[in-house]
Amino acid sequence: MSDSNDHNGFTLWMTGLSGSGKSTITDILIDRFEERQVPLEVLDGDIVRENLSKGLGFSKEDRDTNITRIGFVADLLSRNGVPVITAAISPYIETRAHVRKMHEGNSTFVECFIATSLEDCEARDTKGLYAKARSGEIPEFTGVSDPYEAPENPEIRVETAGKTAEESAQSIIDYLETEGLIPAA
Amino acid sequence: MSDSNDHNGFTLWMTGLSGSGKSTITDILIDRFEERQVPLEVLDGDIVRENLSKGLGFSKEDRDTNITRIGFVADLLSRNGVPVITAAISPYIETRAHVRKMHEGNSTFVECFIATSLEDCEARDTKGLYAKARSGEIPEFTGVSDPYEAPENPEIRVETAGKTAEESAQSIIDYLETEGLIPAA
Repeated sequence: MSDSNDHNGFTLWMTGLSGSGKSTITDILIDRFEERQVPLEVLDGDIVRENLSKGLGFSKEDRDTNITRIGFVADLLSRNGVPVITAAISPYIETRAHVRKMHEGNSTFVECFIATSLEDCEARDTKGLYAKARSGEIPEFTGVSDPYEAPENPEIRVETAGKTAEESAQSIIDYLETEGLIPAA
Repeated sequence: MSDSNDHNGFTLWMTGLSGSGKSTITDILIDRFEERQVPLEVLDGDIVRENLSKGLGFSKEDRDTNITRIGFVADLLSRNGVPVITAAISPYIETRAHVRKMHEGNSTFVECFIATSLEDCEARDTKGLYAKARSGEIPEFTGVSDPYEAPENPEIRVETAGKTAEESAQSIIDYLETEGLIPAA
């Protein structure tokens, strides 16, 4: 739509378990984008739940509604030339396929699977959420009492095991550069 | 944020009663923007209720939530250089002040009051909604059983009485051109 913007619009759609590293990697990507003076909007799960989805819970239906709203806004931005990173668990294959479809013909959709194993996420448990999920204090917790459907053919698959967050972020930057979505540093 | 975009981002926030002409005028503005090859996103009440606010009703709280969501998305777009038109009734002064504040320091917020009188809206009643509101079939209808708080100092006040929709739209275009927000035709 925006023919005046010399950056390509795209949506980098991160998906992965709670604690997989989506937010940490996103923070590094924000710095890398700034270094390149590439504009960026980040739609993380918390920002969107606060501003667009207050009142929604974690049932399949409510999760789908939340993810679809993120997809709607990501599409609006990216089709106008604005790079977007989304960082929500987005556990369902079908819902991710739906938001990909929303972008068709408008901008580039890049699914980025942060493939940290459940064991690793739970071993770290930086926010103590897995402990609460195991004790039943948090119901409907992805990976514990709720499904996580891993992507089968994501554009980017980040194997985080044995890597630093910097290295994981770099593998995403490498992909975006190779595809011409961001300029080289 | 986007230093690569040579159009200014702004939000043209239309407000006015149901049937005041917001959508008709918006349709004309879409054509005018296209003629100038200015990108545009339109967030009208129906689009947003479908994609961001399904399940919300028309209580003051739900209306405020809906309007705040439109404001959140309009700010995201306009601060990235994308012109946005919103066309929801947005009946409350306080809520409009809130969405204006969301834009502060990010982009230009232009409040545009479509000042069609209740009598004129009701006399036309193109969708038959006022009749339903008067009969009680639709509860909480703005102007009938729910308040509409007119803007006191909007950037644009469109007096539609005795004017065609084309003339009303032109007065908005004139303002946007004068302010340098869109190029002259």
